[in-house]
Amino acid sequence: MTGLQWNGDELLVLDQTLLPGKSEWVRCTTADAVADCIVSMKVRGAPAIGAAAAFGVAVEARRLITEHADLKPSELTAKLKDTVERLGKTRPTAVNLFWALDRMAKSLQECTATGCTNAQIAAALREIAEAIARDDVAVNRAIGRYGMSLFHGPVSLLTHCNTGSLATVEYGTALGVIRALHEQGWVKQVWVDETRPFLQGARLTAYELGEEGITHTLITDSMAGHFMKMGEVDAVIVGADRIAANGDTANKIGTYSLAVLCQHHGIPFYVAAPLSTFDLQTRFGGDIPIEYRNEREVLEWMGQRTAPEGTAGMNPAFDVTPAELISAIITEQGVIHVPDRERIERFWAEQGGTK
Amino acid sequence: MTGLQWNGDELLVLDQTLLPGKSEWVRCTTADAVADCIVSMKVRGAPAIGAAAAFGVAVEARRLITEHADLKPSELTAKLKDTVERLGKTRPTAVNLFWALDRMAKSLQECTATGCTNAQIAAALREIAEAIARDDVAVNRAIGRYGMSLFHGPVSLLTHCNTGSLATVEYGTALGVIRALHEQGWVKQVWVDETRPFLQGARLTAYELGEEGITHTLITDSMAGHFMKMGEVDAVIVGADRIAANGDTANKIGTYSLAVLCQHHGIPFYVAAPLSTFDLQTRFGGDIPIEYRNEREVLEWMGQRTAPEGTAGMNPAFDVTPAELISAIITEQGVIHVPDRERIERFWAEQGGTK
Repeated sequence: MTGLQWNGDELLVLDQTLLPGKSEWVRCTTADAVADCIVSMKVRGAPAIGAAAAFGVAVEARRLITEHADLKPSELTAKLKDTVERLGKTRPTAVNLFWALDRMAKSLQECTATGCTNAQIAAALREIAEAIARDDVAVNRAIGRYGMSLFHGPVSLLTHCNTGSLATVEYGTALGVIRALHEQGWVKQVWVDETRPFLQGARLTAYELGEEGITHTLITDSMAGHFMKMGEVDAVIVGADRIAANGDTANKIGTYSLAVLCQHHGIPFYVAAPLSTFDLQTRFGGDIPIEYRNEREVLEWMGQRTAPEGTAGMNPAFDVTPAELISAIITEQGVIHVPDRERIERFWAEQGGTK
Repeated sequence: MTGLQWNGDELLVLDQTLLPGKSEWVRCTTADAVADCIVSMKVRGAPAIGAAAAFGVAVEARRLITEHADLKPSELTAKLKDTVERLGKTRPTAVNLFWALDRMAKSLQECTATGCTNAQIAAALREIAEAIARDDVAVNRAIGRYGMSLFHGPVSLLTHCNTGSLATVEYGTALGVIRALHEQGWVKQVWVDETRPFLQGARLTAYELGEEGITHTLITDSMAGHFMKMGEVDAVIVGADRIAANGDTANKIGTYSLAVLCQHHGIPFYVAAPLSTFDLQTRFGGDIPIEYRNEREVLEWMGQRTAPEGTAGMNPAFDVTPAELISAIITEQGVIHVPDRERIERFWAEQGGTK
């Protein structure tokens, strides 16, 4: 399963707002079409957004060359720099978006420096986008393997939001770990938070787990604490949208409450995320920009108004979990136990430098 | 505003499952009709359920006498004892239901002992039901006044579920305290948890606060922790469905998580409930029966399926908050600070005996 299909020329985006009821693919041949898919959350999930944005630059290069045969390479490059900037404004919190766009921007710089032709520029951008997508799958499988090392037998897990194939290019981050555990026969139960207001848990995670035949039970977000208290949850595992240099982690709204509940119950709280989710320039979680989305998502349910007219709502899409509540961060290069600034610095130094 | 109307002969129940979109009243002239309203949550909220059940016995007495002119008082009493039992099986957690039905059952016993006529039996039952309803309003206003004593100036509060006029006969318990604070000009903001799966917060509390002109903002249940962390919540105040002898409190699912979050953030967590909510026969929260409702309420949203077909859900309607997480219980006879078994025993002794 995947939510992104690339045929070398155009990007097909599975409209995740319609799942699980309908499977509709949006054909994107312009950066604007991709940007719209990201803003409207047709594609969501930090790694998937990064890959989609990279493909957005690639399709835009193709479009510009096709529509403007007389474009000079310097003009093409200038327009594509604007494209990168425009795509960077779609969503503020997930850093994978900026990580992917930075790679595209660097490629443009190199092209300028080496005097590439338009065709060479387009080819270079396409290759990097394809590499980002290809690498993501391998990265997720590695996260799955490292995540496995934290468990020693059958477990009941609780997860929030969607961190599976639909949130990445394939396999998933936190859901990748769950998949890996399932391959080992170690998943007794997955408690799935429905994840209001966008219902990624009910609509996407339940769907993916069902497809894989992994035992799972859907609950409302407000039930997690109850089942922890009943001894039904051995560990919580979630993804991340941005990890600051000290380990503070932004993730889907509701994650922070789960971490507090885990601490209260002595349950391990794991974050699974690729290295591209780290933002070492951001020192603390308090500096991570939190996206506030339209209040309608809170006042409505799939377009149907439930709150009285005149009611105001607030809709922070993410919250920040302080590092001290995180038992471990699982990456494709290994596990950072009890993460803090020093351990994260050391881990990155071992990877051959800082980001 | 009220969700129950009594005209001396029949009970009108406002169908709360249709609010805020539609105001439809269900006319109840039989105990079965009232029982159906309770089971299907057309009327909900511990004190309102208690009052509705009492009226259910009263309307059944009237029906039996009208339909069976030759009924002997002993036969009427036997039938009404069955009625009391049947109404007691509608919902298991809120103890106010049993408290109200016990009062009705005791009246039946007294009638038998004193050789009442059918008309006297019906009149006695009607009078007790009316007293329960009438007292509830006075009780709630007293709770509001005692709740006020916990605050010393303008505050931002967070509440869960609906504890207002619609959950009681009028005014409300936790929402009664909020009303009292508002009358004093002390409410800066009320954060309203939408309260999945039944959306009592979004549909009922937001509606009541809007009608009263009290500033409020609707959030998903998963956002409460975030706003506490941002310093936006000065206190949490909720109702209760049953309070055990040691202070452990059953209330709407999600309450326990709020209490844990309050402890983590050093925010006071208040429970507002009439004395009829105490169940001194139940020693610990672990002994309170928790109602598990149909999974469909979790898998659907107002009748519209959102989870994939084949997904299983769990739907505990309540959770239990241990007394040690409760800063104070506000009753119509005063406030029990830092409740525990001993303080609750002493408080009840001061009220002139145990329940």
